[in-house]
Amino acid sequence: MARLCGFLEMKLATLKSDSRDGSLAVVNRDLTRAKTVPGIVPTLQDALDDWAGVEPQLLRVYRALNAGDCEAIPFDPCRAAAPLPRAYQWLDGSAYLSHVERVRKARGADLPKSLLDDPLMYQGASDVMLGPCDPVEVASESWGIDFEAEVGVITDDVEYGISIDKAAAHIKLVLLINDVSLRHLIPGELAKGFGFLHGKPASAFSPVAVTPDELGAAWQDSRLHLPLTVHWNGHLFGEANAGSDMQFNFARLIAHAAKSRKLTAGTIIGSGTVSNYDLTTGYSCIVEKRVVEIIETGAAATEFMRFGDRIRIEMQDRQGQSIFGAIEQEVRPCR
Amino acid sequence: MARLCGFLEMKLATLKSDSRDGSLAVVNRDLTRAKTVPGIVPTLQDALDDWAGVEPQLLRVYRALNAGDCEAIPFDPCRAAAPLPRAYQWLDGSAYLSHVERVRKARGADLPKSLLDDPLMYQGASDVMLGPCDPVEVASESWGIDFEAEVGVITDDVEYGISIDKAAAHIKLVLLINDVSLRHLIPGELAKGFGFLHGKPASAFSPVAVTPDELGAAWQDSRLHLPLTVHWNGHLFGEANAGSDMQFNFARLIAHAAKSRKLTAGTIIGSGTVSNYDLTTGYSCIVEKRVVEIIETGAAATEFMRFGDRIRIEMQDRQGQSIFGAIEQEVRPCR
Repeated sequence: MARLCGFLEMKLATLKSDSRDGSLAVVNRDLTRAKTVPGIVPTLQDALDDWAGVEPQLLRVYRALNAGDCEAIPFDPCRAAAPLPRAYQWLDGSAYLSHVERVRKARGADLPKSLLDDPLMYQGASDVMLGPCDPVEVASESWGIDFEAEVGVITDDVEYGISIDKAAAHIKLVLLINDVSLRHLIPGELAKGFGFLHGKPASAFSPVAVTPDELGAAWQDSRLHLPLTVHWNGHLFGEANAGSDMQFNFARLIAHAAKSRKLTAGTIIGSGTVSNYDLTTGYSCIVEKRVVEIIETGAAATEFMRFGDRIRIEMQDRQGQSIFGAIEQEVRPCR
Repeated sequence: MARLCGFLEMKLATLKSDSRDGSLAVVNRDLTRAKTVPGIVPTLQDALDDWAGVEPQLLRVYRALNAGDCEAIPFDPCRAAAPLPRAYQWLDGSAYLSHVERVRKARGADLPKSLLDDPLMYQGASDVMLGPCDPVEVASESWGIDFEAEVGVITDDVEYGISIDKAAAHIKLVLLINDVSLRHLIPGELAKGFGFLHGKPASAFSPVAVTPDELGAAWQDSRLHLPLTVHWNGHLFGEANAGSDMQFNFARLIAHAAKSRKLTAGTIIGSGTVSNYDLTTGYSCIVEKRVVEIIETGAAATEFMRFGDRIRIEMQDRQGQSIFGAIEQEVRPCR
């Protein structure tokens, strides 16, 4: 294996194919060209299973792509699956406490006493992961359809009981997530005491996942310090900074997840809905806006999503280049 | 594809190998001989991804194995991995209400109002599934180490919002589960409202998974009507009948799981701890025994598991033949 020099910058996607797991592709920095790499490793899960073994070869392809030195196909984000179309684990934290405070207020639930020093995290469904342009299919508008714009990381194998100090090195990729939420199903099922089942259906993921080094100075202390822009039906709805007000960074979330077990390569860990105390940055989910409306005026003016609504979630670097491509979904009735 | 005649009886195991997903093997009815089938399909997940395509060939191997008509290797349950060593989804129900009532009493939690007509179910960790003889590794005895003996099913692809009537046909395999539970971690985390994370570490699975037809008359109405025997350190601890007092059958649990989403092939759904109202059948987990002791004498006499303790979970057919092989694990300190 060749020695790795310099920064480990890279963008990866999974292109839809006849296979359930799609085809791993390296994507150039501008998100215009892609190259599948069957000769190196066929899928992203396979790559994560042997990250140290394949990373150098994938990095070489990325550098060649950016230099225009290799053949490639045009990259169409809407032909991308989720980077992991089915994953072995999806754990979603709730690291932005302004989100926790507002959402719990919305459903009249108490704040956990340990809010400031013990991360909230739930085990989500990972057997179906939506691609960035896949529709959000829901049986009924009456379920209270909401989006949650988040940042997430994908790990390699993490040892049982890992320390926070060691956890950051297991972050192999960073990506964006739409953690679809069915607000009217949640209070009833959380009251049963076993967490989310119906209220958190399949989540959607950005077209591209990138290495932490690809984020440059925006990745600091296991946090991503850039605004996450959310457009709902074409209107800007939020641009909260994902680096602000994140009480628990990703290293902390990984260590929390691994307290009593190992984590297998390909584990996806979410930040929870990105949210700032500064209300001028808007919202990354509808329910927070509704709570603020109730506080300010006595009633929620904003309704949840309707069939035909569109949600767009994206993050640009300081030069205005889309880092991950956009999650851009339409809400549809389930057939 | 040849037409399938008669009953679809079969036993399958996953043998440990250099691969994370092991090697699929067909095992004979007596659990003495096994044959890997790389020429048909390499892993159980691959088989579930294309069940209709591979089932006829696997059935032929099973029949030949039972007739002594093909070469095979001795079957050693302790060389078996979990049938799915890593799975895309593990959902655990809580279908035996005597278990729910006793466990909630133990932690002073209210019973859900919807107990009788709305199944309890949580999303469990599926990225690490223990083989039948793998140790239960825990960082500290003080976490309250307990077993939970359960029956489970593995499905193929299940459509969004499936009806109970149609759900039974998606049960492809049946198996046994030890849903390891860390009792002293559970009350605190459930109080946070997001379900289990630390309190339910990796579960263990029987050496063999079998088709419903293999269970003959013991499989009725999506329930398994046989006693599940539990030995703790060599002493009989429980022999509750898995067909009695199961409020929600597996078809109902599948339909419940799929209310707001599809389920991908390889989804494992557990019954929850098998438990009978008749106390003479004993217990399938320690915490239930402790609750009954507290009710009867004012104090729990039975402690949770210690390092070095052994748990054995098995089910025999009416002729005394072990159906799934035994889960037989030792509790050890995590290295």
